[in-house]
Amino acid sequence: MARSITILGAGLVGSLMSVILSKKGYRVTMYERRPDMRSATISAGRSINLAMSARGWKALDLAGLRPEMEALAIPMYGRYLHQPDGTSAFQPYGKNNEAIFSVSRGELNKKLMTLAEKEGVKIHFEHRCTHVQVVKNEVHFELPNGEKKELNADLLLGADGAFSALRSSYAMMERVDADQQYLAHGYKELSIPPNADGSMRMERNALHIWPRKNFMLIALPNTDGTFTCTLFLPFEGETSFAQLTTKAAVTTFFETHFPDAISLMPTLLEDFFQNPTSSLITTHIKPWHFQDKSALLGDAAHAIVPFYGQGMNAGFEDCTVLSSLMEKHGDDWTTILNEYDQKRKPNGDAVASLALLNFVEMRDKVADPSFLERKKIEKELGKKYPDQFISVYEMVSFSHIPYRTALGCIRAQDELLEKIMKEESTDEKIAQWVNQYHSTVQQLDFEDGN
Amino acid sequence: MARSITILGAGLVGSLMSVILSKKGYRVTMYERRPDMRSATISAGRSINLAMSARGWKALDLAGLRPEMEALAIPMYGRYLHQPDGTSAFQPYGKNNEAIFSVSRGELNKKLMTLAEKEGVKIHFEHRCTHVQVVKNEVHFELPNGEKKELNADLLLGADGAFSALRSSYAMMERVDADQQYLAHGYKELSIPPNADGSMRMERNALHIWPRKNFMLIALPNTDGTFTCTLFLPFEGETSFAQLTTKAAVTTFFETHFPDAISLMPTLLEDFFQNPTSSLITTHIKPWHFQDKSALLGDAAHAIVPFYGQGMNAGFEDCTVLSSLMEKHGDDWTTILNEYDQKRKPNGDAVASLALLNFVEMRDKVADPSFLERKKIEKELGKKYPDQFISVYEMVSFSHIPYRTALGCIRAQDELLEKIMKEESTDEKIAQWVNQYHSTVQQLDFEDGN
Repeated sequence: MARSITILGAGLVGSLMSVILSKKGYRVTMYERRPDMRSATISAGRSINLAMSARGWKALDLAGLRPEMEALAIPMYGRYLHQPDGTSAFQPYGKNNEAIFSVSRGELNKKLMTLAEKEGVKIHFEHRCTHVQVVKNEVHFELPNGEKKELNADLLLGADGAFSALRSSYAMMERVDADQQYLAHGYKELSIPPNADGSMRMERNALHIWPRKNFMLIALPNTDGTFTCTLFLPFEGETSFAQLTTKAAVTTFFETHFPDAISLMPTLLEDFFQNPTSSLITTHIKPWHFQDKSALLGDAAHAIVPFYGQGMNAGFEDCTVLSSLMEKHGDDWTTILNEYDQKRKPNGDAVASLALLNFVEMRDKVADPSFLERKKIEKELGKKYPDQFISVYEMVSFSHIPYRTALGCIRAQDELLEKIMKEESTDEKIAQWVNQYHSTVQQLDFEDGN
Repeated sequence: MARSITILGAGLVGSLMSVILSKKGYRVTMYERRPDMRSATISAGRSINLAMSARGWKALDLAGLRPEMEALAIPMYGRYLHQPDGTSAFQPYGKNNEAIFSVSRGELNKKLMTLAEKEGVKIHFEHRCTHVQVVKNEVHFELPNGEKKELNADLLLGADGAFSALRSSYAMMERVDADQQYLAHGYKELSIPPNADGSMRMERNALHIWPRKNFMLIALPNTDGTFTCTLFLPFEGETSFAQLTTKAAVTTFFETHFPDAISLMPTLLEDFFQNPTSSLITTHIKPWHFQDKSALLGDAAHAIVPFYGQGMNAGFEDCTVLSSLMEKHGDDWTTILNEYDQKRKPNGDAVASLALLNFVEMRDKVADPSFLERKKIEKELGKKYPDQFISVYEMVSFSHIPYRTALGCIRAQDELLEKIMKEESTDEKIAQWVNQYHSTVQQLDFEDGN
């Protein structure tokens, strides 16, 4: 008989996993800390919108939710750079007009919850998991009125986010390695409304970036004609949130660094002082599972910074990997969870590193003329050697190549492009270098064997 | 008026700190999880004996406990190597007959507690701190009968060990970085009794090591004529604790790898199966303090592995540093705790790294003939250039040079000794290289400015 499954967290990853499990015939119960976001007006979580790419779509296919979400997703075909001198530039993400998609976190989460219930999943809201007795698989909850509850889980999945109670409970056990590192930067969400006629105030099909070396502003389009902007800035120091405590300081800061943006932000000061300044955490834990009893997925296993737009995509890929392991191993959960941990943990570590590295790229390198030149060469290589050259960005965002392979290719890609940009390069030499790069990718991908 | 101080943990570091604070006129209350080890028969903690070196003695001077402990300490003047082929060798630790001292953890702790009480410190036993509300400085305890207690601390010091409740409470706060990493090796304590006439079965004034590449056995002398042996071995794998599940397996393992030791260990099998296999954790946290309200010290701030014999010494040095900051800044605890964190945290990180690196040295390198040769050269250099050459080992064990300086000198020392061992070295060249090394040490030491 199929085991009964308890999921902590009805966020994106928990809800999607519950749908996949229900479709496979498992009885699933989900416990969520917050009230039902479909009836209450609450924040959807960490950010208003997110960037869906290949790994996310693949998981939505499994849930059967792709067509419905595609109708609500705004394709972003590249980065729209807003330079300090007022000029702008567009950098396409892919060579074949590929896009990443701006999606409302709240809408996606609500649809997943409704679909889950349709599939027979029972969701208990306002159940905050305080801790788990891991060996006994005993889950403890606290309700808003202070009431305490406990249950014995058969199979427990922790999709309860960056501050996961299951993760903390693992970390209390002997020989569990764990770490949490905060970025020196925080972030604050701001907004650009539509014009009076409803039209958008900037290019709709792009991810806007104002790269300013040690800080940056970005903006993603929403279906209601607004843009959600996010300012990433150090908490402390000369140019930091700590300095922006008065309306005058904020105005001066935006006028100095983002003159083209401030003119589009009539509610800047209200937004700035009303919205929280949030922190950015990266976490690692080892192992990700306990026997055949429990496992972590999504942010609970690997909270990462948002700079590659891969947080949700990585969490959804955890679901796809678990799903394919269930197909491979049937009801043998000892093997499923063990293989999930072995295969997936190195990729969780890799996407965490990729996300941290991409912060430097976004806020600093993208504005560099040699970076633009480099991106152009990448694109040309991709067109000339379509079977041999795929850039690291394309691997991460437009393929299902393991994150660890992509991370492993960064150095090879850097070497390839530096050689092309610096040395006397003939067509013959380039062909040879591209071939070397291709071998590296293949070898790494083979080693990962995801 | 002097603030009232609450200390969590009446172990070595907490008890010593309480004595230092009492002598300075502070009113100190200490809360200890375990019963009073002076009246109950309980284990003293992680290990039976430990190696006291310069930093430890300096702190005992502050407490006025040095003479009393010296009478109970056994000097170990070097490593006594037991090679696989049955031969042995002695490596002196210092060039001037310096020693590290084998001390009973339990005796030292009891003396410190008694001294603390004599100084007016109140110790509450069997009070397990469950968590601290850091911002409010509200400390929560659980008693053996399940009763809960709480108190509001004025100034709180967490000396509550590697699994510190104050540390965990810090780690729950925004923007606190924390990590815990376990070694793949565990350890088990064993014993060598005295001969029938009370004499010791091996050289008394040495730290005995049986280095065997990926694992090792060590032994420290005790005043009762016994040696406490510790086996460090991987938990899993071909040669590991996981394989040693039968008496036959243990006997074969010791006969194969430690033939000269097994003949001295009549209770090997009883000890092996009665004593626990323990794990080895390294932790980091940032910051180490909160405003002028609380701070971590000892293992609570920096749990480290035992391979440099510096765990207690580093914790005691935390106390000396805090003591000198009190002399410098009087009652200005905002400045004291801030400067303590700034100065001490890099040294806590450094001693953690030194301890991990020394594991490789102890279990693997010390047995290498070229390592013996190198140690001989180190000694000669120290004698020939007493003002210019001090080895990293001497810095750590026989000086008060900051750990971070010592860690920073490893590469310079490696380069110096490799040059002397490999190149055509004239006296003139050596004098020049030693001079370079000396500059490096001075520069690093100046940067640290501990």
